[in-house]
Amino acid sequence: MKADNKRTKNYYSGKPNRRSVSEKKLSNNNKNVQRRKVQKYKPRVVENKPSVKIAFLGGLNEIGKNITLFECEGDIVILDCGMAFPDGDMLGVDLVIPDFSYIEQNIDRVKGVVLTHGHEDHIGGIPYLLSKFNIPIYGTPLTIGLLGNKLKEHNLYNSAKLNVVNAGGKVKLGCIEAEFIHVNHSIPDAVSIAFHTPGGIVLHSGDFKIDCTPFVGDMIDLPSFARLGQEGVLAFLCESTNAERPGYTATEQKVSQSLDSLFSEAKKDRIIIATFASNVNRVQQIIDCAEKYGRKVAFSGRSMVNYMNVAKELGYLTAPGNIIIDIDMLDRYTPDQIVLITTGSQGEPMSALSRMAYSDHRKVMVGEGDFIIISANPIPGNEKTVGNVVDELLKRGCKVIYESMYDVHVSGHACQEELKILQKLVNAKYFIPVHGEQKHLRKNAELAQSLGWDRKNIFIGDIGSQIEVNEKYMKELPPVPSGKVFVDGLGVGDVGSIVLRDRKHLGQDGLIIIVASLDVYDGHVISGPDIVSRGFVYVRESEELLDEVREKCLNILEECAEQNVHEWGIIKNRIKDDVAKLIAQKTRRSPMILPILQEV
Amino acid sequence: MKADNKRTKNYYSGKPNRRSVSEKKLSNNNKNVQRRKVQKYKPRVVENKPSVKIAFLGGLNEIGKNITLFECEGDIVILDCGMAFPDGDMLGVDLVIPDFSYIEQNIDRVKGVVLTHGHEDHIGGIPYLLSKFNIPIYGTPLTIGLLGNKLKEHNLYNSAKLNVVNAGGKVKLGCIEAEFIHVNHSIPDAVSIAFHTPGGIVLHSGDFKIDCTPFVGDMIDLPSFARLGQEGVLAFLCESTNAERPGYTATEQKVSQSLDSLFSEAKKDRIIIATFASNVNRVQQIIDCAEKYGRKVAFSGRSMVNYMNVAKELGYLTAPGNIIIDIDMLDRYTPDQIVLITTGSQGEPMSALSRMAYSDHRKVMVGEGDFIIISANPIPGNEKTVGNVVDELLKRGCKVIYESMYDVHVSGHACQEELKILQKLVNAKYFIPVHGEQKHLRKNAELAQSLGWDRKNIFIGDIGSQIEVNEKYMKELPPVPSGKVFVDGLGVGDVGSIVLRDRKHLGQDGLIIIVASLDVYDGHVISGPDIVSRGFVYVRESEELLDEVREKCLNILEECAEQNVHEWGIIKNRIKDDVAKLIAQKTRRSPMILPILQEV
Repeated sequence: MKADNKRTKNYYSGKPNRRSVSEKKLSNNNKNVQRRKVQKYKPRVVENKPSVKIAFLGGLNEIGKNITLFECEGDIVILDCGMAFPDGDMLGVDLVIPDFSYIEQNIDRVKGVVLTHGHEDHIGGIPYLLSKFNIPIYGTPLTIGLLGNKLKEHNLYNSAKLNVVNAGGKVKLGCIEAEFIHVNHSIPDAVSIAFHTPGGIVLHSGDFKIDCTPFVGDMIDLPSFARLGQEGVLAFLCESTNAERPGYTATEQKVSQSLDSLFSEAKKDRIIIATFASNVNRVQQIIDCAEKYGRKVAFSGRSMVNYMNVAKELGYLTAPGNIIIDIDMLDRYTPDQIVLITTGSQGEPMSALSRMAYSDHRKVMVGEGDFIIISANPIPGNEKTVGNVVDELLKRGCKVIYESMYDVHVSGHACQEELKILQKLVNAKYFIPVHGEQKHLRKNAELAQSLGWDRKNIFIGDIGSQIEVNEKYMKELPPVPSGKVFVDGLGVGDVGSIVLRDRKHLGQDGLIIIVASLDVYDGHVISGPDIVSRGFVYVRESEELLDEVREKCLNILEECAEQNVHEWGIIKNRIKDDVAKLIAQKTRRSPMILPILQEV
Repeated sequence: MKADNKRTKNYYSGKPNRRSVSEKKLSNNNKNVQRRKVQKYKPRVVENKPSVKIAFLGGLNEIGKNITLFECEGDIVILDCGMAFPDGDMLGVDLVIPDFSYIEQNIDRVKGVVLTHGHEDHIGGIPYLLSKFNIPIYGTPLTIGLLGNKLKEHNLYNSAKLNVVNAGGKVKLGCIEAEFIHVNHSIPDAVSIAFHTPGGIVLHSGDFKIDCTPFVGDMIDLPSFARLGQEGVLAFLCESTNAERPGYTATEQKVSQSLDSLFSEAKKDRIIIATFASNVNRVQQIIDCAEKYGRKVAFSGRSMVNYMNVAKELGYLTAPGNIIIDIDMLDRYTPDQIVLITTGSQGEPMSALSRMAYSDHRKVMVGEGDFIIISANPIPGNEKTVGNVVDELLKRGCKVIYESMYDVHVSGHACQEELKILQKLVNAKYFIPVHGEQKHLRKNAELAQSLGWDRKNIFIGDIGSQIEVNEKYMKELPPVPSGKVFVDGLGVGDVGSIVLRDRKHLGQDGLIIIVASLDVYDGHVISGPDIVSRGFVYVRESEELLDEVREKCLNILEECAEQNVHEWGIIKNRIKDDVAKLIAQKTRRSPMILPILQEV
């Protein structure tokens, strides 16, 4: 094993050999080649190597909450630890994090957490993980910078073991060496991770796209993917977000051109642009445009201000001279001297743009003379809220640019042709689509099949799935503990299915509370029953119905006293059943019915 | 006035003159023409005519709940009376109907309700209207048939005054004559309505599209629109649903071709197709396809069965021989002999397709060997639920065709080029975009402006808007009473903003109830305080916190007794404030806090 390990290490010591990818290799991705058989995986030594085990605690059959565990010879490395936003039926839940039980069970063997980039669905769960286990963290400079900011809010910054690794760099975690490979995405400093293990190379794409002309920085490091492909990759875990979309994701340069023409169209109007706070390069594009058109730039929205501070500090955002002004300074300029960059591109109710739309922003009033650009697409599920915000802005007389036809946004994820390029280049023995709902995972698998992969060498997993891969086989192991843990306020995991079921019931139908004091000796009613309802009917207009409920309850209580029924469980159930029947008959509704009895 | 009226009547007696639209007129819709001035509106007699008043009780700044009032010389005609589905924040609400106060105030002058077609957003409010005022109803055969079915459920069928008018027909309602003009839409028997009034012609498009080759029936009656345009139309109210979409809506024939190739692809699989129950022609297409491929057809979903019964009865659906079978007969056939047509194309939780996806359907189990086609696009807001259903079906091994690229659905509404054709053909003096959110209304107005209409001759209204139009001016009048009335179970209007606010609060944060019995003389606590919580925390794991709440309440109550504070309002507020503070500090949450005191 040791020998293997050393050998593997030799593969990529020193700088990545950029010339190792011949032009020929890169041109392989055309239709002629697709008809040919996939090149067979040829490891250099075909001895008995150990297996690599991969466990998925999140990111499969869901968008967000990405976290994957890689294990070889007893050492475990965690890749990413994200959060997810709650679904509509997770009432009152602030965010969702992975279940860490499996990590807890194996904490002694966990060597570190490696991060692909600084988006919430990849780092948002870290504070909750670190508050339990102080595992060392490895990431690129911006990723670590953004995480640091987040850890400060959780009072975890000082204790955390944060390690910066640049793209192209490597870090050794037990027997597993993680290589950081530069990719394009909608946040700078995103990487794929190649795990060089005694069992072979396992590659995780992270989130990526292929942008030959990114606005800032280099094109994705395809030569490194090609090098790995030639060395021989055991398994390739590839993101699936845009696997349903044919073609290519357009280059960020397209957005620059669109912004430029919109800035010129805006003329005397104030420009307000909503985009993702994390999209540092997009903000850079806007600042550059503002400079060209002689406008100052202000930021609105807490997360926007936070991200920009970190990005500026680390040199990921450059703003010439005094172009950036505080939002309180807006009044000192005319509308045509201003660009306001804001959060709220997803129509989030508490975001800066929503507040502006509903006249609830403390510092910015919008109306005629405002030229508003939403530089983002609605994430599935947000179409309606984004539409509502647009409608409100239009009603106030703003001009709003929100449609895809204006090219004010490009995705951060690879479309089908890009996915295929990386799949061919990496040319792994096993293909594992990750990051997506079932339909995305399937589509990505179908892409691999269309390139020649055999269905039996493709694994579509679920949260909790664990597989073992080696040069001989890929095998599914018994699932590991996994799930969704709800964060509500300060509480982590104290809101579960029972609480959510009650919230749903209360939210849909409201409740009726029946309170009565009973004589401790004979059970007769001493005080009450009083009927209190919330969220059920407008009480003033339903006095008759509530009187009927009161009378029914009084009858039941007195009956129980007469019949010497003193067991409260029985009495309460009778009240519940009879009141439910009465209410259903009169209103066809089913509020929660809550009898509370007191002995006096 | 009488003379005018008679003259107007003469215009369109007899069959519509199909040759009155010259080829030249129809070819007017190209770029060269857009640069020319709009042809001036030339009424034949320019005497003093009365005004027409138009009041909007629904359908503006919202999708659904369409209802518009037309008034001339004191006579009122209502066009459509629809319902809307509740927004996400209308918790527990079943459906939303218009506020009928304005109709109530003017009921003596209301001559009738004219219906454009049988969709819920156009007829769904009728039962609630008729339960208050038995106004006569006029509609095409299928529309009246579907409405009749609905009225039976509400026990209103026998008393209702239902009148059938065929497309091309007219009906006189006071001084207003309504002309029914055939249009294409996603349900048969849809019409536009031209109101011939003493004040001039006012035209409402209803929902429409231009389909030159519909699957069943004729192309939209463009000659009639052309004739009206030549006679001179005062105001054109035009639907805006697809005003954001460039180009044309594809013909229904496209769907036939797609279905045919998918049927051939399905081979040995059972085919399950989800579509809108009201899309009778789509169902006809599927039946025809089933016949060609030798498959039997079964229906699943209550509304699907209802619609098909009415459509068959009225001859809008033809099924050869014994091709339609009961869903209980499925077992007698092999999968390749079956097409199951089902509801649930919008991912509605209780629909047949959702039940199949979540293994909750009593009669149909799905899995490998099922070829499922979703022949509908998600209505904005439903993307997520539809996606979830697709994911579940895929997980069970079904093949699912759901993407737009398969052309298994075309919209029922006109896109930009079609809207422009009708706008030019009708060539009204005033243009009023209707049926849509603000963004749709604006886009439709922009289309008219691009054709040469002056912005001052375009009116973008809101619910409650009322305008007066005549040959001299268009003027906004003071708004009329309007709003959203919530239907929850049997209750109509008894759930309002307070109830909804409480439901939202309860649903998000749950509640804590504090119950105590106090001595009627000195206010000391005799029993309790007892703490009951629902939807807040998992009680067994939060005993400590709830004990703290109990102690705090006991202290407050005893303090109040000591201080001779006996006013319950004050005591309750103290409890509310202090408990809220404690909970916020410990959990950062804000459940509803409900102190209930009883005197003993």
